[in-house]
Parts: sequence; structure tokens; C-alpha cells
Amino acid sequence: MMIKRSEVEKYQKKTVEFLSQAGIVLTEEESRNIEIAEFGLGEVETQGLQLVTYINTDRYCAKELVLFARQTCPEHLHPPVNGEPGKMETFRCRWGKVWLYVEGEATEKIQAVLPRGSEEYYTVFHEIELNPGKQYTIPPNTRHWFQAGDEGAIVSEFSSTSRDEYDIFTDPRIERIPKIIEDTNS
Amino acid sequence: MMIKRSEVEKYQKKTVEFLSQAGIVLTEEESRNIEIAEFGLGEVETQGLQLVTYINTDRYCAKELVLFARQTCPEHLHPPVNGEPGKMETFRCRWGKVWLYVEGEATEKIQAVLPRGSEEYYTVFHEIELNPGKQYTIPPNTRHWFQAGDEGAIVSEFSSTSRDEYDIFTDPRIERIPKIIEDTNS
Ligand SMILES: [Zn+2]
Ligand SMILES: [Zn+2]
Repeated sequence: MMIKRSEVEKYQKKTVEFLSQAGIVLTEEESRNIEIAEFGLGEVETQGLQLVTYINTDRYCAKELVLFARQTCPEHLHPPVNGEPGKMETFRCRWGKVWLYVEGEATEKIQAVLPRGSEEYYTVFHEIELNPGKQYTIPPNTRHWFQAGDEGAIVSEFSSTSRDEYDIFTDPRIERIPKIIEDTNS
Repeated sequence: MMIKRSEVEKYQKKTVEFLSQAGIVLTEEESRNIEIAEFGLGEVETQGLQLVTYINTDRYCAKELVLFARQTCPEHLHPPVNGEPGKMETFRCRWGKVWLYVEGEATEKIQAVLPRGSEEYYTVFHEIELNPGKQYTIPPNTRHWFQAGDEGAIVSEFSSTSRDEYDIFTDPRIERIPKIIEDTNS
């Protein structure tokens, strides 16, 4: 599956509006470069993520993550790369609500709803609820996934260097790096 | 010079209000731990800085910096530490206005006003104006200082690991690590 340019632009616009109502300002260039991660699954509103990368150097990285209502970022981990430990991530909720799931004792009744048809690719269920001002740091090489509440969420991600192409997803159908197809004019 | 506990609390409260009106939420613990850097100069409203450290690991660091109206963070640089290159910092303006000065060609007429009596300790004058959504990355080992505009400023700092005790200030009178004296009850 791929995503059409017109759909990318639709979700970019929605992301800018989301950030704007929370008082977060982007430059025009940043707005144009918002990444719509649809993970190759063809159901971006269910399993997808919007990303603004502020900075990614060989020492650190900072992004803003936007999730629409009940949107889920699928389960993955960040493995060691070239002898360096995997990416370490701090998620800080800025707006809305997000449930983060990591390895560890499974929470008895989780609040997120597993994406239909993909249930088998979700395997860690230790729940952390993040509301504005709350944050959590995910160690390298640890499985995690997250889902926004009914209003969506804005999450600041502070981390070591991002090398998204090395991320390992539990769902083997997933392709992390988006393929965008240009709309054809008829 | 030192700063009194009652003054620290006054500026912490003001910092929380500043962040709050910009939609930035802190936990109670973070509010209590806001750092008031008065640099040992005894004129915190002129030369001073308020810091919220969200996370500081051996790989990355993220802080929120708050500057009140026309408050200045004095000139300094981040030297190499234990064979690692010095701290690298990305400043992203979230609210208000800040003028950042770095090494390079001096701007003819800078907009900041040098703190009176400390003029000789400001030596780099390449001006970068940061308004909301604009950011700038300061290479390691490079002198820099910054001043907020007439309304103050909120700046997100994304960086490599912070080791503030190694910072080198141009002004030899400066002590980076604050000494707080408890108010005496009479
Ligand atoms: Zn991750
Ligand atoms: Zn600095």
C-alpha cells in the first residue's frame, strides 16, 4: 500500500491545525515537510502517525508527534545500530491523552483498542497513561506502541539520534519509510 | 552573591505562569524544581535564566528556558568534556522573542541592550532573531549569549548531554551553579 500526495496534504493540514490550537507554531517549510507515516498498511487513520522533525543530528533528535483520535503507532523497537545502543526516547505529552505500552507486567484491562485485523502484532501491554505534563523514557531495544485518546494527542519526543529505517516492527507487513504516489490528473 | 529561597520561589511562580499562558504544562514536581540561574551576579532580573529540565541522560537533554522581559543569559561556551565534543544546542523559540548572539560577523546595530556594568564580558555580536517557530543550532565550543525582547521568551532547548558545571563564562565573576540561602525567620 502507498499513500496519495493529496492525502498526505490533507493530513499535513490537519496536523498544522492540531498543533496550532495547542499554541505550537511551525515554519512554512516545516509544515510542508510534515511526515505522514502510514506504515504501508493503507489505514493511516487507524494505524499511522504524523511527525515534525525539528532537529536530528548525530548526537540528539527532537520531534513533535501528532496522533489523531484513537490513532495508533504500531509496536516496534529501536535496535543497536553500528555498535551504538538503540534509540532512547522520552515521550512528553503536551496536549490530549496517549496510552503508551511497553514491555513489563501486562495491565489487566488496557484502555487502548487494538486495531482490528492486526491484534496479533501487539504483544506488550504494560500501560502508561500520559496526560499533559507527563512523560516517560523508553529504554533502547524495548518494544513499545501507543494510541491517542478520543481527542488525539500531541507528544514531544526527545531522543538520541533517529535512524527510522532500522526500526523493527512486530507486524512484518509494515514498511516504515513512506511511499507517496503522485495523484494523476485525468 | 547568592539568592534567597523566597526569591527563588517568587521567580519559580512567575515561570510557571509564563509557561502556563503559552499552554505549557508542568507537573507539581517540575514546578518545584525550576532552576533560577542567577549566575552569582546578584541581578537575576537583568542577567539570569529560568530552566525546566525535562530529561538529561548520557545521550541527550531537553529543557524549557524561560526569559523574562529583556533578561539576558550571559556569554558562555560549552567545552569538550572527557574527550567528548562540547554540548551542542538547538534553541527553538516557542513564545515571545529572543535575540541570540554567536561567533561570526558582528551585526552592525544589535537589538539587545548590554547589561550595564558588564559590557566588557560580551564579545560576540552575530545576531539571530528567533520568533515562535524559528530555531538555531549552536555548534559545540562556540561562544553565545541571548536576551529576550520586551515581553520575555520561552525557548525549547534540545541538546546533547548537559554538564552545566563545565560551562565557561566570559565574565570571570560568574558562578553557574546557584547558591541558595534560606530565609531566616526573625
Ligand atoms: Zn519508538
Ligand atoms: Zn549554551
